[in-house]
Amino acid sequence: MTSKKAHSSALQEKAGISQPESISSQSVEHIQLSRKVQPSAEELVEGILAGNITALSRAITLVESTNPIHLAKANTIINSCLAHANQSARIGITGVPGVGKSTFIEAFGKHLTSLGKKVAVLAVDPSSTISHGSILGDKTRMEELVKDPNAFIRPSASGETLGGVARKTRETITLCEAAGFDTIIIETVGVGQSETAVHSMVDFFLLLKIAGAGDELQGIKRGIMEMADAIVINKADGDNIKKAQFAKVEFNRALHLFPAKKSGWTPKTATCSALTSEGIPEVWNTITEFLNLTQSNFSFFEKRKEQNQFWMLETINHQLKSNFYNNPEIEQLLDSTKKAVQNDEISPFAAATLLLEKYFTK
Amino acid sequence: MTSKKAHSSALQEKAGISQPESISSQSVEHIQLSRKVQPSAEELVEGILAGNITALSRAITLVESTNPIHLAKANTIINSCLAHANQSARIGITGVPGVGKSTFIEAFGKHLTSLGKKVAVLAVDPSSTISHGSILGDKTRMEELVKDPNAFIRPSASGETLGGVARKTRETITLCEAAGFDTIIIETVGVGQSETAVHSMVDFFLLLKIAGAGDELQGIKRGIMEMADAIVINKADGDNIKKAQFAKVEFNRALHLFPAKKSGWTPKTATCSALTSEGIPEVWNTITEFLNLTQSNFSFFEKRKEQNQFWMLETINHQLKSNFYNNPEIEQLLDSTKKAVQNDEISPFAAATLLLEKYFTK
Repeated sequence: MTSKKAHSSALQEKAGISQPESISSQSVEHIQLSRKVQPSAEELVEGILAGNITALSRAITLVESTNPIHLAKANTIINSCLAHANQSARIGITGVPGVGKSTFIEAFGKHLTSLGKKVAVLAVDPSSTISHGSILGDKTRMEELVKDPNAFIRPSASGETLGGVARKTRETITLCEAAGFDTIIIETVGVGQSETAVHSMVDFFLLLKIAGAGDELQGIKRGIMEMADAIVINKADGDNIKKAQFAKVEFNRALHLFPAKKSGWTPKTATCSALTSEGIPEVWNTITEFLNLTQSNFSFFEKRKEQNQFWMLETINHQLKSNFYNNPEIEQLLDSTKKAVQNDEISPFAAATLLLEKYFTK
Repeated sequence: MTSKKAHSSALQEKAGISQPESISSQSVEHIQLSRKVQPSAEELVEGILAGNITALSRAITLVESTNPIHLAKANTIINSCLAHANQSARIGITGVPGVGKSTFIEAFGKHLTSLGKKVAVLAVDPSSTISHGSILGDKTRMEELVKDPNAFIRPSASGETLGGVARKTRETITLCEAAGFDTIIIETVGVGQSETAVHSMVDFFLLLKIAGAGDELQGIKRGIMEMADAIVINKADGDNIKKAQFAKVEFNRALHLFPAKKSGWTPKTATCSALTSEGIPEVWNTITEFLNLTQSNFSFFEKRKEQNQFWMLETINHQLKSNFYNNPEIEQLLDSTKKAVQNDEISPFAAATLLLEKYFTK
């Protein structure tokens, strides 16, 4: 779907057939997409494992679909990809709007590809449904990375709930890993609950900050600081360097108030400039250090196991609720019951019992 | 169940029948409890509305039961009590072990009854199932309040999950209010998630602290400070007064970092000594100030409506899960499926789908 030109497409795979230059890859894409016959799950898996970006994008589209047939196909694909997934570093990046997430990811991603890594950038942004814009939507802010053949950028899935968006992103990770991406970056918005969801699918959680504007302690109120494995103060350039250094010291002090992490990792603070790339390599060094530590003490693998189980239970709970609240009889009764509960005409517990009886004796 | 001697019992209600002194009220209680015929829901409601503590205790026992027949009866009672409930101030009190919660509640409760208030003290302590001790279990720490005819102390319901314990306490509030208690204090342990549950059932949330021992910023790590409407530093007596004053200033500064509350209330800090009762009346004055503000700007009532709805949805979600995880087929499959998911043999999502299909096509 995105940055396709820079990647090998399914057509280019057919070695030996040279394409006349008069056929633009855009037209090819158009024709491809309009074809009635969709590739089978097996074909898509084959494509993904060969590192084919078109196949990957199509599989992600199936994951993001609401059509049950698509979802069944997506499940088949994901299960076939599983054995080839998991060989990656999953990095979550959060920060409120204005801290320069896009420019940071651009600089950080370029650094990673320069080291020979294959980088997938995904996003969890539940607001994208409403705003139709949002993070990663405007890829012009990652101009360089978009053109990089070793980078794959996919905007946030849209969906009504954060849970839905997050689940789809979690599944997309597996597909990207199977396609050979060894570093998965998951960006999120830095407002609301999306951090917790992203934290549940990554190995390393990076909190991006800038100095000043009362931003220093902003994180505290949402417990985000507690989740952070590193706090990086961006825009440490020009007149800002001193302020950024000061903020780093502040954050470092604050981090020490939190209890020690199960992994044995002590969260780090750093400054960087996404603009000049100053400090960007050091961020990756910190992450490498983290990976070495947690993989050697096995907490890395334990955490992934826990995360897998979390997502299974989360999916079950979501589906149970979805089935209940989409039940036509419940839908019809819910509003009036809520009102009665709010106005103390019926107790919250009696109301719940009433609805549940209707549901289970259908 | 508790402090029965001090209250009017069902027997004493039969005016005109004097009891020979040779029958101790304890023996009467014993005989009453061993009777085969249990009072009907109507009888219990009548008793509760008359302020009869035996009836109240029995109804609470029904709420806490796991027997479905008892629970149905409890629902009937609660619904009949609803119209007579809600006329109270609900106060949550939390603090880690050692801050002197019991002595604070003793002093605070005595102050309230001295003002003519009727005080019910409940607790949410999911650990009580395991420890068989825990908060409010040892009522000797509230010796004075136990003997007070205008106080009713009920230890935490026991249960396997916090959610279960919390729901039972939420229902007990309604019963206590219907029995004429106008101030409901809900104590919780200050560790873990129980604060959030208690916060969802009270109007005012009080965080109890002591000076020193690194306790000042302890609250931050669990977002408890953000929920607090007041932070009270206890044990401000003797050599401790200066330290307590200092801690108060610290907390006050920290509180200002949090965003303004929807209610328009600015969280307050104070010091007190539960031992000498110094500062205890001021705590109640602060709460009165809070109640006046939030009732006049209606946020008090809005919050209660939201809380009612929250508990309805919470109960539904709990029951949906309970029904699923207690399904015999699911119980049999769950462990092996979890293992497969942890070891990446099947994706979390495919595993969830598998279990859900089994469940819904039963």
